[in-house]
Amino acid sequence: MPRHPRLDPLADRYAARTHGMKTSEIRALFSVVSRPEVVSLAGGMPAVTALPLDAVGSMIGELVSGMGAQTLQYGSGQGDPRLRERICDVMALEGITDASPSEVVVTVGSQQGLDLVTRVFVDPGDVVLAEGPSYVGALGVFQAAQARVRHVPMDDDGLIPEALEQALLECRAAGDRVKFLYTVPNYHNPAGVTLSEPRRQAIVELADRYDLLVIEDNPYGLLGFDREPMRALRARDDRRVIYLGSFSKTFSPGLRVGWVLAPLAVREKLVLATEAQVLCPPSLTQYAVARYLDTQPWREQVKHFVELYRERRDAALESLAALMPPGTTWTRPDGGFYVWLKLPHGLDAKLMQPRAVTAHVAYVPGIGFYADGSGQEFMRLSYCYPEPDQIREGVRRLARVIEAELDLHSTFDGVDTGTFRAVSGGQPGIVGPATSDRYGDRA
Amino acid sequence: MPRHPRLDPLADRYAARTHGMKTSEIRALFSVVSRPEVVSLAGGMPAVTALPLDAVGSMIGELVSGMGAQTLQYGSGQGDPRLRERICDVMALEGITDASPSEVVVTVGSQQGLDLVTRVFVDPGDVVLAEGPSYVGALGVFQAAQARVRHVPMDDDGLIPEALEQALLECRAAGDRVKFLYTVPNYHNPAGVTLSEPRRQAIVELADRYDLLVIEDNPYGLLGFDREPMRALRARDDRRVIYLGSFSKTFSPGLRVGWVLAPLAVREKLVLATEAQVLCPPSLTQYAVARYLDTQPWREQVKHFVELYRERRDAALESLAALMPPGTTWTRPDGGFYVWLKLPHGLDAKLMQPRAVTAHVAYVPGIGFYADGSGQEFMRLSYCYPEPDQIREGVRRLARVIEAELDLHSTFDGVDTGTFRAVSGGQPGIVGPATSDRYGDRA
Ligand SMILES: Cc1ncc(COP(=O)(O)O)c(C=O)c1O
Ligand SMILES: Cc1ncc(COP(=O)(O)O)c(C=O)c1O
Repeated sequence: MPRHPRLDPLADRYAARTHGMKTSEIRALFSVVSRPEVVSLAGGMPAVTALPLDAVGSMIGELVSGMGAQTLQYGSGQGDPRLRERICDVMALEGITDASPSEVVVTVGSQQGLDLVTRVFVDPGDVVLAEGPSYVGALGVFQAAQARVRHVPMDDDGLIPEALEQALLECRAAGDRVKFLYTVPNYHNPAGVTLSEPRRQAIVELADRYDLLVIEDNPYGLLGFDREPMRALRARDDRRVIYLGSFSKTFSPGLRVGWVLAPLAVREKLVLATEAQVLCPPSLTQYAVARYLDTQPWREQVKHFVELYRERRDAALESLAALMPPGTTWTRPDGGFYVWLKLPHGLDAKLMQPRAVTAHVAYVPGIGFYADGSGQEFMRLSYCYPEPDQIREGVRRLARVIEAELDLHSTFDGVDTGTFRAVSGGQPGIVGPATSDRYGDRA
Repeated sequence: MPRHPRLDPLADRYAARTHGMKTSEIRALFSVVSRPEVVSLAGGMPAVTALPLDAVGSMIGELVSGMGAQTLQYGSGQGDPRLRERICDVMALEGITDASPSEVVVTVGSQQGLDLVTRVFVDPGDVVLAEGPSYVGALGVFQAAQARVRHVPMDDDGLIPEALEQALLECRAAGDRVKFLYTVPNYHNPAGVTLSEPRRQAIVELADRYDLLVIEDNPYGLLGFDREPMRALRARDDRRVIYLGSFSKTFSPGLRVGWVLAPLAVREKLVLATEAQVLCPPSLTQYAVARYLDTQPWREQVKHFVELYRERRDAALESLAALMPPGTTWTRPDGGFYVWLKLPHGLDAKLMQPRAVTAHVAYVPGIGFYADGSGQEFMRLSYCYPEPDQIREGVRRLARVIEAELDLHSTFDGVDTGTFRAVSGGQPGIVGPATSDRYGDRA
């Protein structure tokens, strides 16, 4: 594959946005991760085999045999009206009770929702605020839009409101056009933390005070282990919050069905943007989701998923606590798919990766979750896909790799044992990413 | 719905590209067209009910029941490797025998392919050359990318090479950055014409001489009524031609499966762009297409579609010839879905539309197919979806509307009877669109 620009005869013809595109850390891992001997704590693939595949199969088969004239045909750009109604029911579970189907746009996964919102709002050079770390797919979208990402620090309670306010003030002082805050309030990817109730209120108030648009990306909201779903930001503010949802984690990612809930004027722009991008979302997959919600016990299925992920989370946290060398810290997710781990002082997750692969364990290095190349000492561990035993084995291998690395560096005296809580008065721009010393102790 | 900017509190926050987006002529018709009493010659919906729905339904049901771990899971951004192999077999039917699956990117319909190629190449202000008229969905993509579209005239043999060369020279003189030529060589949407064999050669030679990138958009290539598929431009030049294909017209548009064939360096950019846009195309729909190609008699099905569309084309052309008032001309498609009709001198298809709808017939006014608001005297008639009897009834109604309009205008002496063949020496920029006096005579 010609990678060197001089080997690409079209190299001088690409758009400016194309030059910034680069392969994600996650994709670079794909070939490694698929080897059977490797325990992958890298991918974020849901456990779809826990679905009732026979029932779903015959349901979809009947949709085609019985309703082929609709399911195999073009549909509306905004998405199937029946599905949009059911989406409003789903959002009601998180306190969004005033959404109308006319404000919903069905998308090809919430990834497309992210892309559409960004295209509608962001000009090159505009600033987007995002947690540090942030979802890698969102960073890819912002990069393709030539936005400047400014990270706002988090801690165990999620995004820090004071840090957000400071970022807003600094952007204002610098004359930056802040287009929106992008935030994942529940079971954050990759940080594994959740925005606390008081902070939700604080952030909505800040949005009001600073006239800030908020993109609330919420694919994991129904996957809490210990509690009812938390009330969405959108449930508190229907004018400044644009909400992104997805069936990837509650049903199936292979259908690629997500949605955006936005005020009507924005909704109209989003529909025009999606029509230019894909004409309309696939009809079959939309009908499949609507029918699934209508006829299958989908809430029980979500509970089933939650039990399964809880068990895997427990396996991960227990073995981390039992095996990780001192100085290693990590977050303690109470929902979702991810643990965010900080290596002992001096270690670099990306540099360590070849050794981890040799030891047959894979993770995603933290730098992929920052727009500015920071995050070297972090990694994301996903517990969603492997069985508990594999998770334990993976953590065991990882612990050995880290220990060997520490031996190599012989820097035990440099081990970082302090408080990791990010401080809003820190260095402007990107402040320290989320970690947790609370849960980092050897149990 | 707040349409007035002052009613949209976010009006000052949209990206520059968003301001240019507007509802397409086709979508504006949707509500009208769906009324049962209206004969719609407007939409381009394929006749999917001619598919063996039971067989396709059980095939897809089995894919989910038996292979849910793959079909309901995330897949690769580039698309399923098995499907990409089968896509290469399909392209071989049009003379593309050297394509490798690694050069193929699966897309959410060829619409997404168009969008991806445009995103990878086009900066705001760049020039895109396109036939006049051109596919409305492509114009929407170019507009969203803030490209400047320069139309190149066509005639009954498709794009006119001399006019293309003239456009290239003029752009060169003006210092414009021409990013590519966008062309639909087969059974053009909306013009209904096909690029002749000698012109294919001429255009490939021009591309070589002027170092011009060509986007060959070919959803209808296998739907020729009277002959074997023509040899693709891509079959003649694998370095300067990027090829877009689709299963929307040969199988099902509701699955939204299309593809791009591009040199490896470009392919790499396209994969990064699609990952930022949708992560990956839906797995289920890709497996459905691959399995369909593997196990169903899909070539016979394409023949069946072709017979059906030929019959409808015949119904359209026969009734047009029998009923249209003098001065009305139209193209004579030998494949695909569309007839491009020119009204008698002085009539305006868009202004006439309310009267047509009152008379219960719908079409798409020609102006939607030009980037510059020209094309008032044209309309697109689609014969793909209605039954032959409906088509005849629709043409009858349309003829009456045109006649009434002519009476109203009392401009019979101004009727245009001359030669409509577009001339390359015409006015720079947009020269006269394709029409056909050859087939316009009252039969
Ligand atoms: C935070 C977040 N947003 C969006 C997505 C995209 O999900 P999808 O496009 O499958 O709906 C993901 C997937 O991992 C995610 O973690
Ligand atoms: C010329 C042309 N290109 C592309 C498309 C988009 O097709 P799809 O996205 O369904 O593959 C169409 C659909 O009508 C078309 O006519």
